[in-house]
Amino acid sequence: MSARQPPHPSVASDRVFEVHAGGKISIATKVAVRTREDLALVYTPGVARVSAAIAEDPALARTLTIKHNSVAVISDGSAVLGLGDIGPAAAMPVMEGKAMLLKDFAGVDAYPICLDERDPDRLVEIIAALAVGFGGINLEDIAAPRCFEVEGKLRQRLDIPVFHDDQHGTAVVVLAALHNAVRLVGKEVGPDLRVVVQGIGAAGIAVSNLLMAAGVVDLVGVDRGGIVTPRRKVARDPIFRRFGRQSNPRGIEGPKEVALEGADVFVGLSAGDTLTVDQLAPMADDAIVFAMANPVPEIDPALARHHAAVVATGRSDEVNQINNVLCFPGLFRGLLDCGAREVNNEMKLAAAAAIAGIVGEEATPEYIIPSPFDRAVVPAVARAVAEAAEATGAARLSGS
Amino acid sequence: MSARQPPHPSVASDRVFEVHAGGKISIATKVAVRTREDLALVYTPGVARVSAAIAEDPALARTLTIKHNSVAVISDGSAVLGLGDIGPAAAMPVMEGKAMLLKDFAGVDAYPICLDERDPDRLVEIIAALAVGFGGINLEDIAAPRCFEVEGKLRQRLDIPVFHDDQHGTAVVVLAALHNAVRLVGKEVGPDLRVVVQGIGAAGIAVSNLLMAAGVVDLVGVDRGGIVTPRRKVARDPIFRRFGRQSNPRGIEGPKEVALEGADVFVGLSAGDTLTVDQLAPMADDAIVFAMANPVPEIDPALARHHAAVVATGRSDEVNQINNVLCFPGLFRGLLDCGAREVNNEMKLAAAAAIAGIVGEEATPEYIIPSPFDRAVVPAVARAVAEAAEATGAARLSGS
Repeated sequence: MSARQPPHPSVASDRVFEVHAGGKISIATKVAVRTREDLALVYTPGVARVSAAIAEDPALARTLTIKHNSVAVISDGSAVLGLGDIGPAAAMPVMEGKAMLLKDFAGVDAYPICLDERDPDRLVEIIAALAVGFGGINLEDIAAPRCFEVEGKLRQRLDIPVFHDDQHGTAVVVLAALHNAVRLVGKEVGPDLRVVVQGIGAAGIAVSNLLMAAGVVDLVGVDRGGIVTPRRKVARDPIFRRFGRQSNPRGIEGPKEVALEGADVFVGLSAGDTLTVDQLAPMADDAIVFAMANPVPEIDPALARHHAAVVATGRSDEVNQINNVLCFPGLFRGLLDCGAREVNNEMKLAAAAAIAGIVGEEATPEYIIPSPFDRAVVPAVARAVAEAAEATGAARLSGS
Repeated sequence: MSARQPPHPSVASDRVFEVHAGGKISIATKVAVRTREDLALVYTPGVARVSAAIAEDPALARTLTIKHNSVAVISDGSAVLGLGDIGPAAAMPVMEGKAMLLKDFAGVDAYPICLDERDPDRLVEIIAALAVGFGGINLEDIAAPRCFEVEGKLRQRLDIPVFHDDQHGTAVVVLAALHNAVRLVGKEVGPDLRVVVQGIGAAGIAVSNLLMAAGVVDLVGVDRGGIVTPRRKVARDPIFRRFGRQSNPRGIEGPKEVALEGADVFVGLSAGDTLTVDQLAPMADDAIVFAMANPVPEIDPALARHHAAVVATGRSDEVNQINNVLCFPGLFRGLLDCGAREVNNEMKLAAAAAIAGIVGEEATPEYIIPSPFDRAVVPAVARAVAEAAEATGAARLSGS
């Protein structure tokens, strides 16, 4: 639970391959089949009565099959970690890892499914067809803008939650960290906060949308072309066009420096773009810098701390690690617990508040976000998500 | 291991639902994640090196992911047990049961995937896209003739084994039982044996094809319209048309009785069609009757025994149960053990011989097929399949 971590462990290279040998998950059976009587209960002829019951009342699939606790972790391998488009086979270790964490942290039975398909409509068809046996879909490492279309259409079609973790998991944990960071410097997540988001990809858009849903108004996106405006031709996709319209309410234009002038918060989600000390200097007093480029942050945290009051990164060897592991296990636990039909903004906001609340009054500039190994995280997130689901009418099951 | 079984257990109705509550399988993790060091090994940043390694050398997916031991159990729910077209959600308990048996009997990690799709081409696209993470595909309970097209096209496209168990699993176990049955009555599976197959659906076609691959020449198909001939309009599908051309070498025509006259073997795979004692009487001396209609055999086994030397059914409360559980666990164990690229006839013939060999010299008219709980079955089938794979060049890994 210490906020300081040991040296970066990627040097332990052989152990990495050792623990991956043969894969990281397996199937466990709940019933041992030792006799013909066992076989007749769990397989034919007994199973026919169970199937017939579900055919008559489809809702029984949630009590008589694995659906109630099962999540598909699905990727096309097009944007895997910092590796980019490495294809579905090479994405498997990441999806297995995700499945492992969902089970280990939150008791969720997740199965990795990597798809050899890139067309967004066909991805939607495939995922919609295989969703029957699952209580939720965790999309993972799908490149933008395809990920927006795939997730959007699946959300329309399916009556189970669909969550692209690279987007929304990141958004939830950024918002959680921001809650504690602004409180430390006496500011608020609200209309007075000026936020600059650098890197307007899948995560950048999702973080921006959730911050705006949380009350931020003055949010400006920047990328290598400078400030994002509705006039600038970043409009590859309706999602990007909407971002251009909804962000930047003061209508500022020009290079990144213009946006950073007087900004309270810098959120870096860029691939390889940087933030220099000179660019950081004109930010407002008590600036907050989340430099989450992976594996090398936009600015060295030690340098950033000369000007910023609170600094966070995505690295496990630094304090304040913005890590999606803080969100997705508890989120899916909560979604499954209440039989949620969808994931909505209210649930994401509730999850962020719950994560922030674990730190609460103990917050310091070096401790704005809990450790993923803090056992309080998953139950708090799960409860918050289930309550938000119930409050928004998205829960099948009542928690009380 | 006794050949006699207790009364039909479908009356134990509440226990059936009890053992199905919550589903029958779950996910197990191979590595516990307790510290940031663990997380860095099994997830980011460590996992990136594993993914990068597979991107460079795709063959590493077989050593560094779950692929080597994973089978997808896939159905569209269109022909589930005796229930028919009950849809993908209601098919889940059967697929979970199959996954459970694959693990429990043979250590294979199988995952149930039920697809809400009926178009054969789209089924092929979906299954081909999701096959990346699996070492084999077990198709299950897909209606004819769609199952022929789906399996055929997948076999063309994929470099992993694709096996529709309702067809080929049944065929393997029928052939295994037949090996011992004919030996008991001093006959042979060969050109002198006259075989009548009643019910020319998916299983009937597959059984016929495997018996012909095993040396049977004089095989005649019958259905409610009488004897199947190339002229009769059963030609809904190329597979049926081919059956019409390849079977019935004497070119006989007319009602079922004509086919049964002097026949050595009756194989019933019909849905509700019967075999009367009068129809059975004109069969050859030492007739063999496999009445496998489910749940009610084509003829009462006790009645059949008045005329037939050897009788088998699909029922667990009768002797000589023709049960696919004798084949699929050991078959997939063998396929995965040798990294098979396909399932071919040689492997199916080898599996049938291995199952028959477990009984061997101990065969009696009441014991032509081993119990599924005979621990010798799975290793014998697995070894035979892997050897056949190696002999036919279909194995990626050498067994020696």
